[in-house]
Amino acid sequence: MAGHVPVTIDLIRAAHARISGHARRTPLLGAPFLDRIAGRRVLVKAECLQHTGSFKFRGAWSAITALGGDVRGVLAYSSGNHAQGVAYAASLRGLPSVILMPADAPAIKIANTRALGAEVVLYDRATEDREVLGAALAKARGLELIPPFDHPQVIAGQGTVGLEIAEQARDLGISQAEVLVCCGGGGLTSGIALALEAEAPQFRTRTVEPEDFDDVAQSLAKGAVVTNPLRAGLCDAIVTPAPGRLTWPILQRLCGPGLVVSDTQALRAMALAHDRLKLVLEPGGAVALAAALFLPEQFSSNTVIVTASGGNVDRDVLLRALATGDTHADS
Amino acid sequence: MAGHVPVTIDLIRAAHARISGHARRTPLLGAPFLDRIAGRRVLVKAECLQHTGSFKFRGAWSAITALGGDVRGVLAYSSGNHAQGVAYAASLRGLPSVILMPADAPAIKIANTRALGAEVVLYDRATEDREVLGAALAKARGLELIPPFDHPQVIAGQGTVGLEIAEQARDLGISQAEVLVCCGGGGLTSGIALALEAEAPQFRTRTVEPEDFDDVAQSLAKGAVVTNPLRAGLCDAIVTPAPGRLTWPILQRLCGPGLVVSDTQALRAMALAHDRLKLVLEPGGAVALAAALFLPEQFSSNTVIVTASGGNVDRDVLLRALATGDTHADS
Repeated sequence: MAGHVPVTIDLIRAAHARISGHARRTPLLGAPFLDRIAGRRVLVKAECLQHTGSFKFRGAWSAITALGGDVRGVLAYSSGNHAQGVAYAASLRGLPSVILMPADAPAIKIANTRALGAEVVLYDRATEDREVLGAALAKARGLELIPPFDHPQVIAGQGTVGLEIAEQARDLGISQAEVLVCCGGGGLTSGIALALEAEAPQFRTRTVEPEDFDDVAQSLAKGAVVTNPLRAGLCDAIVTPAPGRLTWPILQRLCGPGLVVSDTQALRAMALAHDRLKLVLEPGGAVALAAALFLPEQFSSNTVIVTASGGNVDRDVLLRALATGDTHADS
Repeated sequence: MAGHVPVTIDLIRAAHARISGHARRTPLLGAPFLDRIAGRRVLVKAECLQHTGSFKFRGAWSAITALGGDVRGVLAYSSGNHAQGVAYAASLRGLPSVILMPADAPAIKIANTRALGAEVVLYDRATEDREVLGAALAKARGLELIPPFDHPQVIAGQGTVGLEIAEQARDLGISQAEVLVCCGGGGLTSGIALALEAEAPQFRTRTVEPEDFDDVAQSLAKGAVVTNPLRAGLCDAIVTPAPGRLTWPILQRLCGPGLVVSDTQALRAMALAHDRLKLVLEPGGAVALAAALFLPEQFSSNTVIVTASGGNVDRDVLLRALATGDTHADS
């Protein structure tokens, strides 16, 4: 049903009107030390400062506020940023939320999702199918499923990041830029690309993915969807097998070429964001900054704008990133 | 000379007009997990996201842009946040800056201050007097001294934080709050207090200091300036012997009672800001948040607004803070 609503700039503008005063308008940050490493101006859209620590709150709020009045609650499956975004957006709207999480998910993530107001339903990864379970639960309890990216109102919500980037860049007098987006299923990237097509058509949107999970870069290069095997990776927030049914045509029309960084580059970008911007990033939220800093030969514009899309990082991974070096000593 | 300009709300408003588009309008952040610990709403004015990682850029910009046209450069002595703020503000204005730093300051801080555009002049703490040296240099080279806090235009620049807090709180519908400010010499606190007196008179400004460096809290309690011995402390950014000549009358008239936190509380607040707000704070920039979280019995209002005044922390201190525990596990 929702899948039939076309994703347009008007849908994004309407989402922005609903989000205003609820999602944070996150700052666009920079530091001379980062510019020096990149050899050009680097601006960072700090979505790690969004409610629940990632941009996912925007899509969740957009989708939930677009539901009809007779909805009794929402359902999502995710143990990550989308779960937290949906749980918190639902609780602010006074709607119950049910999040399906694998029983072997870290206890901390389960506790946090509960603390944000969700009812967590655990399932056994080995013996249960979360989609079947989710569909049954949704039907039995009258819940609306909020998918992580392949949903018009979710894409529209993420696209509000693009509206803000266009406006903030304009305020800074920037007329030309490449905009790098940390890309998993493509919800954030396609939303931003649509927003920039309308509001800053001279900007180019480019995807950034981790090595070995570059399904979008490969798909863009080939002109057809290429699928990665689904497996675990350091950049867990953006490890997806393929672009979505709704996101792919938008990515194909507006984005590319895709960029790819190593895990080590993502960790180094985390350390630099930490020391130079005072921001905590997670690996999947740092790949766009990593590309801006460490792949300078890939860009032709004087300004590169990157999304720092999330900051929900476990302590051990953060310490690994900080162990890549005290970047204060680099300059 | 500059010392004779009275510090008024008009001076702060004029500084705000000069700063607009140059200093960042930093966000006012919060997280449900912090509210739960504090037992009330906690909002964090994230000045660690300001240029050079602390609010000091505001006062530096305000003072430098208030100078007459015949100034050939500026001078400051500081190895910390004020040095960086002055160096960067001067470089953006195309003015040379000279920063006097002790020769035994960390090499990284010297390198960073140079990288921000300053000429660093080293002196020997044991044998040279920096004030005598600074006065001689200023005279010989026609440089204007920018003091760290006891200067009307510096106080006015820091006061712009207060104008923004008043406006951001109004946007959130907050009509009553205690505003906690990390307090060293009192430049930030007195500026904020003056701004709130005019723009949010129902708000109360309160100082927060580290244990054993509570000269302002003691002065406020006694009604007369009390002096601490000057020595090193974990919260190095706000370790000062006494409130200033210009700041004290403002603090006495508008602020208090003063609050005091332990170093351990400051470190725990750093860890919570890190995990829950995705912000890197330094100990001296975390004491106000520490008071909000760990001294709940000290407050009567439903909302406490805290300044997170800086994030320039050495890696070893940051790791000490993170070692106080993974705060994700608290909830």
